[in-house]
Amino acid sequence: MISDAVMWKNVWFKRLTDPKVKNPVLIEGLPGIGYVGKIAADYLVKVLNAKKITEVYSFHFYDQVIVGDDGVCRLPRNELYQGRWGGRDVLILVGDSQPPISDLEGHYLVFKEIFNYSVSLGCKLIVTLGGFQDAQVRIKPKVYVACTNDNLLKKLVSVENITLDRGGQGRIFGAAGLLLALAQLENMDGFSLLGTTLGTLEDYLAAYHVLAALSKILSLPLDLSGLEEKKNRTQSFLLDVKRRRKDYLERIEEPKPPEYIG
Amino acid sequence: MISDAVMWKNVWFKRLTDPKVKNPVLIEGLPGIGYVGKIAADYLVKVLNAKKITEVYSFHFYDQVIVGDDGVCRLPRNELYQGRWGGRDVLILVGDSQPPISDLEGHYLVFKEIFNYSVSLGCKLIVTLGGFQDAQVRIKPKVYVACTNDNLLKKLVSVENITLDRGGQGRIFGAAGLLLALAQLENMDGFSLLGTTLGTLEDYLAAYHVLAALSKILSLPLDLSGLEEKKNRTQSFLLDVKRRRKDYLERIEEPKPPEYIG
Amino acid sequence: MISDAVMWKNVWFKRLTDPKVKNPVLIEGLPGIGYVGKIAADYLVKVLNAKKITEVYSFHFYDQVIVGDDGVCRLPRNELYQGRWGGRDVLILVGDSQPPISDLEGHYLVFKEIFNYSVSLGCKLIVTLGGFQDAQVRIKPKVYVACTNDNLLKKLVSVENITLDRGGQGRIFGAAGLLLALAQLENMDGFSLLGTTLGTLEDYLAAYHVLAALSKILSLPLDLSGLEEKKNRTQSFLLDVKRRRKDYLERIEEPKPPEYIG
Amino acid sequence: MISDAVMWKNVWFKRLTDPKVKNPVLIEGLPGIGYVGKIAADYLVKVLNAKKITEVYSFHFYDQVIVGDDGVCRLPRNELYQGRWGGRDVLILVGDSQPPISDLEGHYLVFKEIFNYSVSLGCKLIVTLGGFQDAQVRIKPKVYVACTNDNLLKKLVSVENITLDRGGQGRIFGAAGLLLALAQLENMDGFSLLGTTLGTLEDYLAAYHVLAALSKILSLPLDLSGLEEKKNRTQSFLLDVKRRRKDYLERIEEPKPPEYIG
Repeated sequence: MISDAVMWKNVWFKRLTDPKVKNPVLIEGLPGIGYVGKIAADYLVKVLNAKKITEVYSFHFYDQVIVGDDGVCRLPRNELYQGRWGGRDVLILVGDSQPPISDLEGHYLVFKEIFNYSVSLGCKLIVTLGGFQDAQVRIKPKVYVACTNDNLLKKLVSVENITLDRGGQGRIFGAAGLLLALAQLENMDGFSLLGTTLGTLEDYLAAYHVLAALSKILSLPLDLSGLEEKKNRTQSFLLDVKRRRKDYLERIEEPKPPEYIG
Repeated sequence: MISDAVMWKNVWFKRLTDPKVKNPVLIEGLPGIGYVGKIAADYLVKVLNAKKITEVYSFHFYDQVIVGDDGVCRLPRNELYQGRWGGRDVLILVGDSQPPISDLEGHYLVFKEIFNYSVSLGCKLIVTLGGFQDAQVRIKPKVYVACTNDNLLKKLVSVENITLDRGGQGRIFGAAGLLLALAQLENMDGFSLLGTTLGTLEDYLAAYHVLAALSKILSLPLDLSGLEEKKNRTQSFLLDVKRRRKDYLERIEEPKPPEYIG
Repeated sequence: MISDAVMWKNVWFKRLTDPKVKNPVLIEGLPGIGYVGKIAADYLVKVLNAKKITEVYSFHFYDQVIVGDDGVCRLPRNELYQGRWGGRDVLILVGDSQPPISDLEGHYLVFKEIFNYSVSLGCKLIVTLGGFQDAQVRIKPKVYVACTNDNLLKKLVSVENITLDRGGQGRIFGAAGLLLALAQLENMDGFSLLGTTLGTLEDYLAAYHVLAALSKILSLPLDLSGLEEKKNRTQSFLLDVKRRRKDYLERIEEPKPPEYIG
Repeated sequence: MISDAVMWKNVWFKRLTDPKVKNPVLIEGLPGIGYVGKIAADYLVKVLNAKKITEVYSFHFYDQVIVGDDGVCRLPRNELYQGRWGGRDVLILVGDSQPPISDLEGHYLVFKEIFNYSVSLGCKLIVTLGGFQDAQVRIKPKVYVACTNDNLLKKLVSVENITLDRGGQGRIFGAAGLLLALAQLENMDGFSLLGTTLGTLEDYLAAYHVLAALSKILSLPLDLSGLEEKKNRTQSFLLDVKRRRKDYLERIEEPKPPEYIG
C-alpha cells in the first residue's frame, strides 16, 4: 500500500539499496536545453557502470504514465545512481523529466528532497550540467560556469587546459539552477557547467565538451570515446547549418546584379 | 458536519457498506476517450447487478454541482461497486468525471486513495478500460494492451480467441494509466485494455470488444446481449462514416474529365 | 499576530459575537449572475436589521486589497449576519466576492467552513439565492428551484400563490450550488431559488421575485417596498430592451418595399 | 540540511541576527509600478546605513535562480533591514521581487510571515511605499494616501507642508496593499504612500516625493541629496515626454493650412 504520509509530501523515494559512499559529489543532468545535461549524465552512468540506488517520484514531473516499447508501463521518475569515478564516489541524477518551468513549487519540493538526501549521504559538492542557448553556431562550444561562491569560481576559471566562461548577470532555470542555489543557501560548494548549444537538437557536441571540462576540473580521467561518434555527427550537422546560414546571408546581402540593361 | 481532517486530504470517501470480498479484481471505467471505459464499466455494474459500496468525492473532479433531471442536486463523484462475476469478486470503479488532464496532482491524490482502498480489500489485480484514439474507421476495433510487467503481458497476448495488440512507446492518460502505474510501483499485476475509437462518439462498439476481450482474459463468461443494439447502432454509424470518407476521397482524387473540348 | 494555524487552513473567521440562534435557516446571496443573489441577501440584511456576527477571509476570494471611498482599506471578505425574520432566526451570507469559477478548491474550502459553522449553530435548512441566465427578456421573471431531495421539491412546487419552475439537467456554479450539495451530502434540507435574468445588469427585478417566492415558501412576511423603486427601474429598462429588440427584428425580417418602380 | 518543517510552510526565513528594536515602524518598498517603492526603500537602507537582519525565501517569488555579474548564483529573496532614522527604529523590507499578481496565495503566505515577524519585534505602525499609475505627466507628482483607519487618515491629510491626496474607491495590488490590510485586520495603524508615475520608467522623481512626504509625516529628517541627480534625470525625461506630447497634439489638432490656392 502506498503510504499516505509519503505521498502527502508531493515527492517520494523508492530506495533500492542503502548506499555506502564517502564524500560523494552529486552530478545532475536532467532533460533541458539541447539535452546537454541529460546526455552527459546518462553517459557518466554508462561509462562508470553506476548502480541505481533510488527512484524519485512526484506528480510535479507533470508527465503522464509512460508505456515502453514493450508495452510495460510505469510512472515518470528521476533516478539517482551511485558510481566510482577514479578514486571518487559520485551520485548521478538522471531522469525522464523535470517539473515544467511554470511549476516552481514542484521544483523546490522535488529538488530540495534530492538535495537533502545527497547531503545526508555526505555530499559536500554539487555539480549541475546543462545547456546554454546561443543562436551562434559554435563548432567548439563554450562552457559557461556559475558558482555558489567567489573562491570556488576563482579556482575554476584558473583550471589548466580548459577555458571556462563567466556568464553575465542572468537566470539559470530548473534543477541546474535550483540545486546550486540550495547549496549556496547552505554555504556548500557547487558549480554549474553549461555548454553553448542551438538548443534545437540533441547536442552531443556540447555534452562532450561539458564532460571534458568536468573531468579536468575534478582531476578525474574520463573515457569519452563512447561519445565520439555522436559528437562527430552533431559537429557535421552544425557545420552544415553554418554553411547554409552563410549561403543565405550572402544571397540576401549581396546586391543583385541588374537583370537586364537597355 | 463535514470533517475537517477528511476534506483536508483533497479526496474523501462516503462508505455505504463494509464490503466482504475475496481476492477481488478492480475494474476501472471512467469517462474518457470515446466513453469506451465508462460504457464498459457501467454495463458491468448493470449486468452483474453490482452494489454500490462507496462514493468518492473531491474538488479535483473540477465539475460544478450537478442537477439531475428531477431538480435534485449533488456533488460530482466517483463510485465503487461490488459485484460477483462468475466465481470471482469484482470491484468496479465508475463515475461522473475524472480530474482534468492538466491536474496531475488531483489524479495522484484521487486514484492513490482508490488504489489503496482496493488493496486494503485484498485486490491483487487491476484492470483499466478505455479508448485509444485512432483516425482510422475500424468496423472491428483493435484492442490494445498495456501491462505492469513482462510475464503478464506474455500471458495476455497468448490468450486464445482474442487478438490483443501491443501499443508502441507512448503515454496513457488519466485513471486508466495511473492506476496501472501505481500497481507497477507496488509490484502488482495490472493491465489496460484500450479499444480503438474515433473518439468523437459514445463508442459502444469499442466498449463491446473491450468487454469481450476482458471476458476471455479472465475466463469469466459475460452476457453482452444488453449491449448489442447500441453496438449495432455505433457500427452502422461507422459504416456510414467510412462510406462518406470513401466518396469524398474519390471525388478529390479522381481527375476530373475535361469539361469541354474544342 | 495572525495565527499560523488559522491561516494555514486557507480560510479564517473573525468572530465578532457568539451568536445565540435557534434552528436558523442559512440564506446565501453572494455576487453572481445579474447580482440577483447579492441584491436579495443585502436587502434582507437591511430590512431585517440583521447584525454581523462573523467576517470570513480567504486568499481564495482572489481579489486585491479594497480601498473604500474614504481611503480606508481592507481585505475582501464574506460576512455572516444574524437576523430575525417573523418568528424565525436567519443567518445571511453576503460578501464582496466568491472564489473564481476556476478555483474549485477555493470554493470547497471556503464554503465547507461556512457550512460547518452554520451547522454548528443548529442550522438544518440551507437556502441559496441567485440568477439563472436567460437570453429572453421577461418582465415577470421565472424562479427556478433546485433541491437536495425529492420530498422537499414536491413540497416546494406545490406552495400556493407562487410558480416555481424545475430546471432541466444542468449545473449550478459557485456558492449557490456548493452549499446545497454539501447539504445533500449530509442529508440536510436545502433549496436554491434562481431568478431568470439577462445577467448583464444589476437585476433588481429578479431579486424582487426571488425574495417574494422565498417569503411565500417560508411563510414569513417580508416588506419589499424598499426594493420597489429599483425593481421598477429594472423593469423599465427591460421593457425598453424588449421594444428595441422587436424593432430590430421587424427591420431585418420585413421585406423592404421596392425603392423605385419604373 | 534544509528543514522539511520550514520549507513546508512555503516561505522560510534565514535569520542573520537577533535584532533589538523598540517600537519600530515597518517600511515596505518592493518592486512594483515604476519601481517607486523599491527605489525609495533601497535609498532608505543606504542613507540610514541599515543592517540586514533576515533573508526571506519562497518559491512564490516565482523567479528562477539569479546569477550575479560575478557568476555567483543564489535564490531570489526579500530582505529585512534594521536601521535608525532620527530617534526611531525602522525595519525596511526590500527585495528582488514579489509573488506575481495572479498568485494571491503566495502574497498571503509570504507577507503574513513578514507581518507576524515585524509584530513580534514590537512593530505597531506599517508604512508601504509604491507607485500609482497615471497617464498624465506630472513634473510634481501627487502622493496618494490609503490608510487602515479614519482617525489616522485625518491626521495624515492635515500634516503641514505636504499635500496628500485621497484616492477614490479602488484596489491596491501586492505587498503595498496586503501588509496594510493585515494591519487593518489586527486593528493596527498603517498607511500607504503612492506616488503618481507613468509606470514605464524607474521613477526616481516619484520616489523622491514619496520619501519627502514620509519624512514630514514621521517628523524624521531625511537627507535626500543622494537621490537628487537621478531625480533630476527623471524630471528632464518627463519634461521631454511632455514637450513631445504637446508637439504631437498640436500637429494632429491644428488645422493644416491649405497647401495651395488657385
